Amino acid sequence: MAELTQNANCYEMKHQLAYYECTDSGHPSMSMMCSMMTMVSDAHSIFVGLDRQTIEKSGGAWVVIGYDGTLSDEQPSFGDQVILGTKAIAYNRFFALREFWMTDLNHQHEYVRLRAMFVMMNLKKRRLMGIPDELIVPFNSPVEKRLPRLASPVELGADFDNQDYRVRYFDIDINHHVNNARYFDWLMDPLGADFLRHHQVASFTIKYESEVKEGSTVTSRYRLADGESDAPTSVHEVWSNGELCTAATIKWKKVQ
Amino acid sequence: MAELTQNANCYEMKHQLAYYECTDSGHPSMSMMCSMMTMVSDAHSIFVGLDRQTIEKSGGAWVVIGYDGTLSDEQPSFGDQVILGTKAIAYNRFFALREFWMTDLNHQHEYVRLRAMFVMMNLKKRRLMGIPDELIVPFNSPVEKRLPRLASPVELGADFDNQDYRVRYFDIDINHHVNNARYFDWLMDPLGADFLRHHQVASFTIKYESEVKEGSTVTSRYRLADGESDAPTSVHEVWSNGELCTAATIKWKKVQ
Repeated sequence: MAELTQNANCYEMKHQLAYYECTDSGHPSMSMMCSMMTMVSDAHSIFVGLDRQTIEKSGGAWVVIGYDGTLSDEQPSFGDQVILGTKAIAYNRFFALREFWMTDLNHQHEYVRLRAMFVMMNLKKRRLMGIPDELIVPFNSPVEKRLPRLASPVELGADFDNQDYRVRYFDIDINHHVNNARYFDWLMDPLGADFLRHHQVASFTIKYESEVKEGSTVTSRYRLADGESDAPTSVHEVWSNGELCTAATIKWKKVQ
Repeated sequence: MAELTQNANCYEMKHQLAYYECTDSGHPSMSMMCSMMTMVSDAHSIFVGLDRQTIEKSGGAWVVIGYDGTLSDEQPSFGDQVILGTKAIAYNRFFALREFWMTDLNHQHEYVRLRAMFVMMNLKKRRLMGIPDELIVPFNSPVEKRLPRLASPVELGADFDNQDYRVRYFDIDINHHVNNARYFDWLMDPLGADFLRHHQVASFTIKYESEVKEGSTVTSRYRLADGESDAPTSVHEVWSNGELCTAATIKWKKVQ
């Protein structure tokens, strides 16, 4: 097994894929993939001395406002040991960019690489706050006035199908809001089991615009382009109470 | 840390609770608790040389037909390291009984203890099959004509409330059926966030009667007794296509 990097800026951990992190394809679901990335950034945070309590004291919580990323054709399977990694890339007063990856135990094969943009939300006021120095300096990443941007989702336009989902109690996470990873289930489920069984995600970008409230119903709108080709694209929006909550674009690859 | 037991009959593993295994209380959800138990019995199976491929060759798959168990007042929190354990208790031609537990790293505090009854289902014919010797003998548990029974759920009766849930693609697991653990979300969600935030599970029993099919809608029926007391009981049934799929009884304890 390759050595794990564990320092202020970059952190890796070993993880065994549980069956409940995988879909019926035997490979990790997108929602669980993003959840695992949150797990490794939490572990990194604890590693540099910033545990949950310390962050809570600031009155804020890290919130992901978007991901983009690419997945390789070969994906790990239920029971496999993988390396989850994360690196603090750069930050400024309001934004922090992080990279994530999942590789095999030898760092030979990279299954996933993604980027996430974080902001800090004041939990009481439910609004953006400046990132306190003491919560970001420990990661030893450069301050940069302009951070690289994540890829923008394509516009959905007026021609779409849609399906409703009621927010369930168990969609709410420890930060008392709908977990970011859950959106992938809402986004992808309307494409149907037949499509999802015969296609895998090649790349994606997702942007979280506003929070979905507990107890509400969301509408998952989508449009599938080139559905019959080997490389279809799907465009998604999640709406709740007349507000756009999430926009995403997913590029697919037919499973061989 | 206490030593882990790992032998043919009994197997323990260390596990760190991820945030996505916990509800907004910060403690594991019932569905994730049961998923973790499946994870440790999978690990036990691999430990005795019965990997997924070997089991698949038999044409069968292990299926849980019921759980019962008790939970202590003090539950572990997100980020905690715990020990997950399992022991093969006894079996006969069609049934196998297993015990599961979750404790702290010193075996000092037991958070959960539960029992699960397993059968083997022929995946092609979707019906019960005899447990092949080669899949059960390695666990070195006694053959017993009569196995202890799990506690029976209380009858729901005619006076109940109900709520519908559509089965989503991501509810389907690697065995191509709705994951047993998912039922807890359907059972408990109708009780509402306010009840669920102020009560924790003290004990429960759940019986899986028949499979929920992909693409169907289930109705979660429930009745709450003594809802205002410190120790309410809820009785549950999940129905799909006119069939009773799952029955459960949950005893609750008010969170102090």
